[in-house]
Amino acid sequence: MLRTHNCGELRIQHVDEVVTLCGWVQKTRDKGGMVWVDVRDRYGVTQLIFQEGETAEDLIKNAKLLGREFVIKASGVVVERFAKNDNMATGEIEVKVDNLVILNKANVPPFIIEDDTDGGEDLRMKYRYLDLRRNPVRKNLELRHRLMQLTRSFLDQEAFIEVETPVLIKSTPEGARDFVVPSRMNPGEFYALPQSPQTFKQLLMVSGFDRYFQIVKCFRDEDLRADRQPEFTQIDCEMSFVTAEDIFKTFEGLVRYLFKHVKGLTFGDFPAISYDEAMRNYGSDKPDTRFEMKFIELNKEVQGKGFNVFDQAELVIGINAEGCAEYSRKQLDALTEFVKKPQVGAKGLVYVKCNADGSFKSSVDKFYGQDDLKMWASKCGAKPGDLLLLLSGEAGHTRKAMSELRLHMGDLLGLRDKDTYAPLWVVDFPLLEWDEETQRYHAMHHPFTSPKVEDIPLLDTDPGKVRANAYDMVVNGVELGGGSIRIHDKGMQQLMFKHLGFSEEEAKAQFGFLMEAFEYGAPPHGGIAFGFDRLCALFGGSDSIRDFIAFPKNNAGRDVMIDSPSAIAKEQLDELGIAMKS
Amino acid sequence: MLRTHNCGELRIQHVDEVVTLCGWVQKTRDKGGMVWVDVRDRYGVTQLIFQEGETAEDLIKNAKLLGREFVIKASGVVVERFAKNDNMATGEIEVKVDNLVILNKANVPPFIIEDDTDGGEDLRMKYRYLDLRRNPVRKNLELRHRLMQLTRSFLDQEAFIEVETPVLIKSTPEGARDFVVPSRMNPGEFYALPQSPQTFKQLLMVSGFDRYFQIVKCFRDEDLRADRQPEFTQIDCEMSFVTAEDIFKTFEGLVRYLFKHVKGLTFGDFPAISYDEAMRNYGSDKPDTRFEMKFIELNKEVQGKGFNVFDQAELVIGINAEGCAEYSRKQLDALTEFVKKPQVGAKGLVYVKCNADGSFKSSVDKFYGQDDLKMWASKCGAKPGDLLLLLSGEAGHTRKAMSELRLHMGDLLGLRDKDTYAPLWVVDFPLLEWDEETQRYHAMHHPFTSPKVEDIPLLDTDPGKVRANAYDMVVNGVELGGGSIRIHDKGMQQLMFKHLGFSEEEAKAQFGFLMEAFEYGAPPHGGIAFGFDRLCALFGGSDSIRDFIAFPKNNAGRDVMIDSPSAIAKEQLDELGIAMKS
Repeated sequence: MLRTHNCGELRIQHVDEVVTLCGWVQKTRDKGGMVWVDVRDRYGVTQLIFQEGETAEDLIKNAKLLGREFVIKASGVVVERFAKNDNMATGEIEVKVDNLVILNKANVPPFIIEDDTDGGEDLRMKYRYLDLRRNPVRKNLELRHRLMQLTRSFLDQEAFIEVETPVLIKSTPEGARDFVVPSRMNPGEFYALPQSPQTFKQLLMVSGFDRYFQIVKCFRDEDLRADRQPEFTQIDCEMSFVTAEDIFKTFEGLVRYLFKHVKGLTFGDFPAISYDEAMRNYGSDKPDTRFEMKFIELNKEVQGKGFNVFDQAELVIGINAEGCAEYSRKQLDALTEFVKKPQVGAKGLVYVKCNADGSFKSSVDKFYGQDDLKMWASKCGAKPGDLLLLLSGEAGHTRKAMSELRLHMGDLLGLRDKDTYAPLWVVDFPLLEWDEETQRYHAMHHPFTSPKVEDIPLLDTDPGKVRANAYDMVVNGVELGGGSIRIHDKGMQQLMFKHLGFSEEEAKAQFGFLMEAFEYGAPPHGGIAFGFDRLCALFGGSDSIRDFIAFPKNNAGRDVMIDSPSAIAKEQLDELGIAMKS
Repeated sequence: MLRTHNCGELRIQHVDEVVTLCGWVQKTRDKGGMVWVDVRDRYGVTQLIFQEGETAEDLIKNAKLLGREFVIKASGVVVERFAKNDNMATGEIEVKVDNLVILNKANVPPFIIEDDTDGGEDLRMKYRYLDLRRNPVRKNLELRHRLMQLTRSFLDQEAFIEVETPVLIKSTPEGARDFVVPSRMNPGEFYALPQSPQTFKQLLMVSGFDRYFQIVKCFRDEDLRADRQPEFTQIDCEMSFVTAEDIFKTFEGLVRYLFKHVKGLTFGDFPAISYDEAMRNYGSDKPDTRFEMKFIELNKEVQGKGFNVFDQAELVIGINAEGCAEYSRKQLDALTEFVKKPQVGAKGLVYVKCNADGSFKSSVDKFYGQDDLKMWASKCGAKPGDLLLLLSGEAGHTRKAMSELRLHMGDLLGLRDKDTYAPLWVVDFPLLEWDEETQRYHAMHHPFTSPKVEDIPLLDTDPGKVRANAYDMVVNGVELGGGSIRIHDKGMQQLMFKHLGFSEEEAKAQFGFLMEAFEYGAPPHGGIAFGFDRLCALFGGSDSIRDFIAFPKNNAGRDVMIDSPSAIAKEQLDELGIAMKS
């Protein structure tokens, strides 16, 4: 090594040792006869000192010429500092330099490489390699590394085998859009990049692998929303001879293990609530249960009093914002503005102030008397000093809007502390969901998810009511992972494809290999996949997965650092037998 | 779990316990009043017993109907076996079944699922999920799993950070052919799949990550040779502030760690030999050093005696095959046939038998007397009883042919024991190699490899003579990994691109981001990448990487199980803005 120590390890006990450090110049302070240089690497920062009378003159001159981010190699003796710095691990010592080599110069960086930078998002993405030098960004990736190692260590202990499934697979029209790869050796044909290793992990169960996992890149060619990436990472797992409860036990175990080792937090059994319950109570299949504020259905209480908006509504729901009775006009107007935003989509907001004196003040006083309001408050468990907020309309839209309002109130009231974690399972998802556009049912999870045995008869009579053996793990309003007990019977799989509108030929062309595999001894099996980028963001206390990806792409799917995608040579296209359409 | 135990864990101490097992029917033996069923899972095999008088009649009837590879769930009490079987871990017990459930039936498999199968390669690839049930195949993948966990564990201990680099990157014409991915969101533009994460890992060094690793899929669109795959896995590593010796020390450490934990073998420091020495002594840059049999150059000794073939040869080399003087005419003819094969490419073979009585017999007795032959034998260190084998011709071709012959003799003489491992480093590779086709120099390793400082002046005068700071780790004639100390200086990198025939514009368009990064404080750095599939094969004692890949592709790049690549829908092509050329 060009160094004897790294920049984070020297302590008082190293005093008098002769050492060599390598790293980047964090800053220099020039007090005339004395120059200090902070040299930084991944492990820390150490102070170098150059002192008139003690250090050779040309060395001091060279030290004065060092710019930010120069890469240097400095040798010298470790000395005790006169003024110690408790804020840095190496703060008791400094190195009196007697040899200094500039390993590489550096231009002035386009933004300041410190915890708080002056660089905007675009600039930092273009110079991502400089952004990655900043402590908070590097720490995010160190956290990601640690979570990967811990995940594998846990699953290895639990007898899971890591198997790499192929990246060049086959395109299927089900699900999101595939990225495809033209095959030069098979002209006119294409590979697809996997949206998940779903069929392969099921085949591994047919192979008797019993427990499989992989931390694996997956790909979706979607129009990117703010926090989606065309390539993302999953912790992908599958087990044989299990029920959903076995999956819960195993993967609660994983998540508990991660929380314990990374955050020192422990959890009991994760609660499970049904999809229906989640929708009724929170208007979301990924409820943030760090706080209560459940929905109360008020149709019976509010309808029939001449207030048209409520009378004509399919659903009227309220939530109780504790201690908010004193909200000002301005605050209440802001809430109304909030619910009217297009992404929330409500037409208006009804409030009821439960005043400290036991009286009520509402935005619908014209239609409802004090007794009415008192009854509502009682139904909602509101006390004097609380504020009821009511939305109404079509059930689905109203629940969605109220979910947004609930989260917003949670934010306003400080109920969503990022160091508090509330994990739970959401279970009994619908098997199918109706798609208005294509006028047919789609698999809510994927076509390999098994229906609940007791609901199978409903497939023919009321398909939308069939519940699936599907589950999500949700933490703080974030879906961390999801999975299901799979179909392992060929007949059931055929029935499923039929209900999804596949012809027999289509089913065979796309998934024939899986259905054939089911004829050679397929065990009952199920699994789960965690969004690993999301998991890292949750542990890192951030909402953005991009902060936890070394080289992310922007919303146009572009890597602005390497400038990709890009045009390719005509010879390449010719070899592949493809042409661009004009 | 549907089971209480797996099929490999029951022992004599479990006798009298009531257990439930799940697994596949390995075989049934029906002795009329007694039926035995072997049930198998990943963990082992357990014998079930159904016995007239003790087992319910319909249960016995059901047991008799079980076919091979049926998936069953069987409950009962563990009993001590009358006739124990020392060959199986569960051989002391059997399970007296009182409940039997068929979880899934199975068709008769297309080949026998046992260690020795009757299935041919094609059939086993089509039904890979059944092939994976066979112990030897599953054990290969279990070995792969273990090697992955150990590799990460070692590198994590050594402070390497695992960073996932992007899969959707940018196409560059240097190196092998890229697989490309059309971008729907950026019409007319393409991503490429990485042939290696080379530039990204170098950028991570510029970022100060100091030590990086990743076990990562890489892609090359090559015409596939027997043992190449379009997607393959690398252990990819990079370190900052290192010399080649630091890389050797660290990664010898990794390989020693793997040998120790997987095979219980220990090694001292790996020897290092130069590329020139390897070519001179073994005719190969990946010599199998499990046995000596070095090349002896004999030009001086053999030329000028009127034997035209030798006189006109650029190079005459011999090897000494110890104890082979008694080879028969037929054996010698077979060797001549061997060297004449097109893939070996020699025109003929000269032999000299060093007879036990001290006399010599050669195929060129017409030109050389006993004294000549004695001198050759002495030069080659041959003793009575040994056989000299000589090849001659153009130096490069002759060395290549002799390398093949040497390995062949090693095989014949049993000198290549697959449980013996001889690791070494081959160093000082040429920086550039001349390409006849394009009439220009190509980077032997890649364009980011640094030249040896003392050879830089030769770049202008004799580029082919410049040595690189490049190294390979070779074990038993297999290149396990290779790497180099990289260029970290923009000027040097520009010079290198110039010598590789890049115009300034081309260099900037393709690698501008890297050269720009070198201007912001790039540290000296170097790294290595191991072929992980190859590493698994070496540890598994196999020549074929395909045996160690769960779902390999065939030589046409095709996955015959899922039938991929395949045609895609016209709508998909339209969305991507591409068309097939007719």
